[in-house]
Amino acid sequence: MDKAQILVASNRGPVSFSIDDDGGLRHRRGGGGLVSGLSSAAAQADTLWVCAALSDADRQAAARAPEGRLDRAGFDVGGTSVRMLDIPPATFANAYTSVANSTLWFVHHMLYDTPNKPGFGAGFRAEWADYRAYNAAFAEGLLTGSADNARVAVQDYHLALVPRMLRGRRPDLRISHFSHTPWAPPEYFRMLPADIGRELLEGMLGADHLGFLSRRWADAFLRCCETFLRADVDWAKRTVEYGSRVIGVAVHPLGADADGLRERAAADDVAERRAALRERVGDRRLIVRVDRTELSKNIVRGLDAYREMLRDHPEWHGRVTHLAFAYPSRGDVPEYREYTESVLRVAKEINEEFGTDSWTPLILEVNDDYPRSLAAYRLADVLLVNPIRDGMNLVAKEGPVLSDDGCALVLSTEAGAADELGAHALLVNPYDVSETARALHTALEMPDAERRERGAHLAEKATAVSPQRWFGDQLRALG
Amino acid sequence: MDKAQILVASNRGPVSFSIDDDGGLRHRRGGGGLVSGLSSAAAQADTLWVCAALSDADRQAAARAPEGRLDRAGFDVGGTSVRMLDIPPATFANAYTSVANSTLWFVHHMLYDTPNKPGFGAGFRAEWADYRAYNAAFAEGLLTGSADNARVAVQDYHLALVPRMLRGRRPDLRISHFSHTPWAPPEYFRMLPADIGRELLEGMLGADHLGFLSRRWADAFLRCCETFLRADVDWAKRTVEYGSRVIGVAVHPLGADADGLRERAAADDVAERRAALRERVGDRRLIVRVDRTELSKNIVRGLDAYREMLRDHPEWHGRVTHLAFAYPSRGDVPEYREYTESVLRVAKEINEEFGTDSWTPLILEVNDDYPRSLAAYRLADVLLVNPIRDGMNLVAKEGPVLSDDGCALVLSTEAGAADELGAHALLVNPYDVSETARALHTALEMPDAERRERGAHLAEKATAVSPQRWFGDQLRALG
Repeated sequence: MDKAQILVASNRGPVSFSIDDDGGLRHRRGGGGLVSGLSSAAAQADTLWVCAALSDADRQAAARAPEGRLDRAGFDVGGTSVRMLDIPPATFANAYTSVANSTLWFVHHMLYDTPNKPGFGAGFRAEWADYRAYNAAFAEGLLTGSADNARVAVQDYHLALVPRMLRGRRPDLRISHFSHTPWAPPEYFRMLPADIGRELLEGMLGADHLGFLSRRWADAFLRCCETFLRADVDWAKRTVEYGSRVIGVAVHPLGADADGLRERAAADDVAERRAALRERVGDRRLIVRVDRTELSKNIVRGLDAYREMLRDHPEWHGRVTHLAFAYPSRGDVPEYREYTESVLRVAKEINEEFGTDSWTPLILEVNDDYPRSLAAYRLADVLLVNPIRDGMNLVAKEGPVLSDDGCALVLSTEAGAADELGAHALLVNPYDVSETARALHTALEMPDAERRERGAHLAEKATAVSPQRWFGDQLRALG
Repeated sequence: MDKAQILVASNRGPVSFSIDDDGGLRHRRGGGGLVSGLSSAAAQADTLWVCAALSDADRQAAARAPEGRLDRAGFDVGGTSVRMLDIPPATFANAYTSVANSTLWFVHHMLYDTPNKPGFGAGFRAEWADYRAYNAAFAEGLLTGSADNARVAVQDYHLALVPRMLRGRRPDLRISHFSHTPWAPPEYFRMLPADIGRELLEGMLGADHLGFLSRRWADAFLRCCETFLRADVDWAKRTVEYGSRVIGVAVHPLGADADGLRERAAADDVAERRAALRERVGDRRLIVRVDRTELSKNIVRGLDAYREMLRDHPEWHGRVTHLAFAYPSRGDVPEYREYTESVLRVAKEINEEFGTDSWTPLILEVNDDYPRSLAAYRLADVLLVNPIRDGMNLVAKEGPVLSDDGCALVLSTEAGAADELGAHALLVNPYDVSETARALHTALEMPDAERRERGAHLAEKATAVSPQRWFGDQLRALG
């Protein structure tokens, strides 16, 4: 008893805690594809979500719950059991910040300033040992919580070693791993120390089924298996044979949660912000972007493109506003702090070059305000999504779903979402500032009827695979 | 009459000029594989070398020669005709510094700090127009200087557009293009504006025959042709079909010029420097590196590895010296100035951490002294060649040829030379500082007999394809 048939493992869980003014724990339930997906699975099976405590408040909550089981400590965690792992802070910092976010994230997004970084010296080996320990803690949590023949859905690059750790001890388990990031081509992946690169690939190949957000990332993974493991890849069947096992590799393009989004966007706080934004920008055309200030999101080149568009097309002066929401991210990594400074600098330059008493060409907001983002989606004439590399990009899918009157999407070819949305978007090379500038102009000029029609197609494609189906497909792939 | 049957085009020619104290022009003949190769071809056919004036002195010389024909102006240019093109300085700067060296070089060596660079805005289009003009100037020089059915050997990324320019106007010519750099994989090449990426590939495919230094670079080029031109690649025959023509793609791994090198290294100035170096380092073991201070050469991680080796193996303190010759390069590009500062900083740290009154662990020299480099090759116990990416790397081949007593080679897997030398070198991942540190220790510990045997194999492999044969193979590929 009390063993789950369906388990999820991810760094971030479905609930997070904060400490309120009285020193009490307050908890907040999160959203996203996994939450929706697992909730619907919970109706039919015993489910367990294994996640890490991410803050001091999380740690307090985990410590208060027997064996970290939040559901047993009286917290409302949404119908599934949740085990929050209290991983020692130093171990967590090395595994999460140093290895996962400062190394694997950089490799898969090809973000390194290669002449200078990375350098894998003695320090990295210690961090890697902690990445292993962090993965082992998840594996342990999954092992103790899983019924015979349970299905385990492991999430993302933080937990690449978990499938193999489970496989070695519990051959009965049916294991999947899903990558929410891109995957690096072998020519880039090879910068990892050879043994560590192999350990990552072998770790994932401990699963029965591997999922990616785009065919391109799946192909890159398969090429890595060929190159570094000399594994046998069947390109027609999309399988890898390794260690006398056959592992399936498939693409599951997560869609936007249409119902949840529309419900949230209909709330009063969104309506208020929508009215305030409309008041602020008047009847000007609106170009919207919403991103974490993340190196891969390419905010600076996006601003450069807006500037080039304003230089080339003075007819838009006074008639367009660019709303750029760039909320803070990873302030603990120096490259991110420097990048944020670049964003602020270029934004200032643009308003100095073009701004007038009656027109602010660019409104940059760096605080995170989710209902304001939804309001902006509703009002956008043009949505700019130009990452240099992105697993999928949910903004590109959510924006068209919420648009009041249809929006044109200027979309990077390097976002996984371009696979589904490319036919109805204006695709751009994210490094090509001039092309992006031209696309912004084309999008602004687009006749209303065309914009509405494209917007409708985008919304349809964006919601083709609901989070429930996305998660269910991964489970079904496990039989 | 006066038309050549064999032509070479390259940015840098076989001769360069300087202005002496009296204001007169002094010229100096260069070396390298092309000079040796074309000289031997000149014995059997009329040859013409088309190159660019690279300095004010070059421009004066070109202006003094009728139609830039240096051989007609009484300069000794080594048995071939030479036409030096006086390209307008602004055009040259855009083509050479901005496009070739700050863009194409960075793409093929994967050197970009991608979140921040490159950004292809309006400025780049102007530079690209000058790259076209510079290529057109070369094409014009080749067209006017070539006999019917002449063979034209175009060199390197500076001149990627020349083959197609020639093909369009002179279908009789037989044209090759040789890439001395690596070639970027499609996942990286795609950051170039799409039309410019295609123009580069189509420019090269104007040739009949394309040469690369490593199978890996040739494969990457072929994958780019498939990806961006949808060209038909026959992977068995190693050909590309495009525009109803079939273009051959082959690997010609240039070897060291054994005779020329040994003759030069036997000169008095080398012997003097050898004695001075020996005096300076005593009977300590010697680790040598010789590089331009080039972002791809990975000098900083090399120094980091030496530092880690000294930390892990105190038994070497006082018993080893690292001679690092890192002569200046591309001071006009900001990244190179910053990189030079990093090299100096880390070097200083190492001597501060380990140096004693009687032992300087690291000797860094930043001035270019060719005979001193040859002297260091003769004395080296260990040669460190660890580029993050390198078309071939001639140091890895020249060092073993000149070694007095056999040297161990610590060699990056990412150098094209690893194809030929890998079996007898200690291969390292250039990003893996710890692995490089271990390889340095292994190399220092290597028994003399093994070092001599490996060194002999390395020297043999390094000279397997002489410059004459290398160049002759490219001509023969043209029939």
